[in-house]
Formats: sequence, C-alpha cells, structure tokens
Amino acid sequence: MKNRMLTVHHLARSQSERIVWLCEELGLPYELKCYARTPATGLAPPELANLHPMRNAPVITDGELVMAESGAIVDYITTLYGNGRLRVAPDHPDFAQFVYWFHFANGSLQNHVGRTMVISRAKVPLDNPVSVGVRGRMRRALDLVETRLGTVQYLAGPVLTAADIMSVFTLTTMRLSVPIDLAPYPNIRAYLARIGTRESYRRAMRKAEPGLEPLLT
Amino acid sequence: MKNRMLTVHHLARSQSERIVWLCEELGLPYELKCYARTPATGLAPPELANLHPMRNAPVITDGELVMAESGAIVDYITTLYGNGRLRVAPDHPDFAQFVYWFHFANGSLQNHVGRTMVISRAKVPLDNPVSVGVRGRMRRALDLVETRLGTVQYLAGPVLTAADIMSVFTLTTMRLSVPIDLAPYPNIRAYLARIGTRESYRRAMRKAEPGLEPLLT
Repeated sequence: MKNRMLTVHHLARSQSERIVWLCEELGLPYELKCYARTPATGLAPPELANLHPMRNAPVITDGELVMAESGAIVDYITTLYGNGRLRVAPDHPDFAQFVYWFHFANGSLQNHVGRTMVISRAKVPLDNPVSVGVRGRMRRALDLVETRLGTVQYLAGPVLTAADIMSVFTLTTMRLSVPIDLAPYPNIRAYLARIGTRESYRRAMRKAEPGLEPLLT
Repeated sequence: MKNRMLTVHHLARSQSERIVWLCEELGLPYELKCYARTPATGLAPPELANLHPMRNAPVITDGELVMAESGAIVDYITTLYGNGRLRVAPDHPDFAQFVYWFHFANGSLQNHVGRTMVISRAKVPLDNPVSVGVRGRMRRALDLVETRLGTVQYLAGPVLTAADIMSVFTLTTMRLSVPIDLAPYPNIRAYLARIGTRESYRRAMRKAEPGLEPLLT
C-alpha cells in the first residue's frame, strides 16, 4: 500500500457501496467517510460533491490522487492492491467471461436499470414506445444474468470476482429507486442469497448502510 | 493471434465503430461484417440481433467465443492482442488517468448522453426536473472532458489509448441521435480534429460508415 491509506467516500444508497464491499473483500486498510443525501434533492451533499467535478459518489483518495467512477476505482484497486484477487488472469479460460461481466455491469445492467429509473421518474407512460423499449432492454439484461447464473455460481465462473462487486448493487440497493420484481429470477435470488452469506459483504453493508437491511430477496 | 481471425459485427451508427477503429489502430487482421438498422424500428436486424442475447452491436467472434459489450471487447482485444499498446501499464504515472477515462467513457459520458437521448425521444419537456437533471449531468461530463483536454492531447495523457477509442463515438456519431452543440467546447473540437488526422480512424470510418462524413466539428 506504499505507506498510505485509501479513503472511500460513500453516499448513502449509491453505487459507492461497491467500493466499501471491495475493500472489505480484499481486507484492505481504508478510511470510510459516509454521507447522507441532501433531503430536498436526493443528491450528494456539498462536502461530497465538491470532492470531484462529477459531484457524485464514489470518490476515493489515495495519496494525492482523487478518483471517481466506480468501474475505474474497482479496476484501479484490484490492479494495484489486489495481488490478482477478484480478477481473472488473461491466460485463464474464464478471462473472457470475467471481462464481459465486469463491463456488462455498468455498460448494460446498470445502464438499462438507470434508464428505466429516469423514464419512471419523468412519468413517461408505460405504453410509450420509448418506455417499452427501455424496460424491454432492462428485462433482457436481467434475463441474461438469470441465464448465466443457471450455469455458474458467480458471474465470471466458480469464484467471486470484481464482476460481482460491480453487479450486486444494481440487483439489490438500486431496487429502492427502481422497483424490480425478482420473483421471475430464481437464479438471481439464489445468487444474492449466496452473496448475503459472505461476511465481507455483510460487514460492508453494516458500515455503509447501517439502517438498511440489504435487499437480497 | 493463435491462428484465428477476429470477426467484428458492426451496426451502422452505433458504438461498434469503436471496435472497427480499435482493430485498425492496432493493425489487427479482422473480418468486418456491417449491418444496416431495420428502417421501421431503428434496431439491429435479426441476423445481427440473433448473434447475442443482448441483441445489439458490437459483437465479435474469436474462435468459439462470441462477445458483446464494447468496453469488454476493447479490454479483451487490447489485453490479448495489443502487446501493451493503447493501454497504460499499472506502474506508469498515467495509469490512474487511463483507468479513470477508460471507465468514464461508458460509465458517465455515454451514460448521460444516452439518458438525454431517451428523455428527448420520450418528449419529456425541457423544464421537467428529471430532464433538467439528466441534461445537467451530461453537460457536467462534457465540461470535464473539455477541462481535461485543455491540459493533455489525449484523455489518458500524451498518447492515444483505449480511453479515446471508447470516448470518440459519443462525441461524434452519437450526435446524430442526440444533437450536442460543441461550440462551447473548443478543446473537444481540437481533440476531434486531431483524431480526424489519424489514418487508422479515417480508414475505420470509411469501412464502417461509408456514406457518413465523420462528425468531427
């Protein structure tokens, strides 16, 4: 760790829970700073927003570095501080699956769930063709996760990786903002139950969301 | 290349132009298959959609592997076939910048421009608070790119990397779907002009979008 300590800035009920879980999973020393959302707007409070021009969480600091963007932070921390853990090496047979699901997390799953949230908040009618398309792509992404989890325990294969660290928030806490019925997805529910048995995940959620029971079912 | 040839499936005016440019930039042997959008829906035609469950471009095949998700494909190809080119090594001072901008491309820039496209297509009024928020985040992402390009020639530093390969589509071709006025962004315009002088980019665009003049200004 080059004699310095990571600081993780976490906004309640946001993607930054990924980074808290990551640090717990890797057993890294880190300082956690938690922020409540501004009640009137639901946005990050100024003391968090002012840390980075995108004005959102997650943000980490590592020495002089200030870094945002959850995918970047997970890539950065696992590469520099993970000793290969939570990643799949390029010469491993599961490398392509790891890379796919790692990028799918933000590129498709979070993206389509997020668009559904926006369309829903803007009260676009359910039968509007744009709404139909957006929700259809979200279901397609969930269907693909469901199919994948019918053949493997974790997204990249038999062991937990950064692809799971990136994906679980969208399937759990984000459902507070975009209600998604997981009843049609037994493999996803079994996967979340598996995640929920991990002490590192439970410890991360207790620290990051002390008042929140994780939405694992 | 392990005695096999990449096939790149490209949908007109889509993110898959990134993969064509990547292959040209790396000088890789690849077979390019181009598809027009279905006129009635604007979506991928069945022969492309049926290649992968997400039913969209890009898709590559590499031997038995079928892979979607542009970020994953760029990560996969640069890692396995790039010999370090277009990436920044973990021990390089620009590593954090590379990782940040590589993930920012889909996680923030494409994400916020895409949400603006959805809100606009759904005809959500400009003064709707959701619309104001979505467009504000898009401008914040563009502002950040503009600021960055005031200090460096390319997003990760002095040389072109996969972070640029991921970002340029959103700043050029995607403006056919989401008109963005680049007049307030002189650094972005100078950057796109630099990109436009690269023979590999020009060759890629001639192959991928033969009827389209790249939106570089």
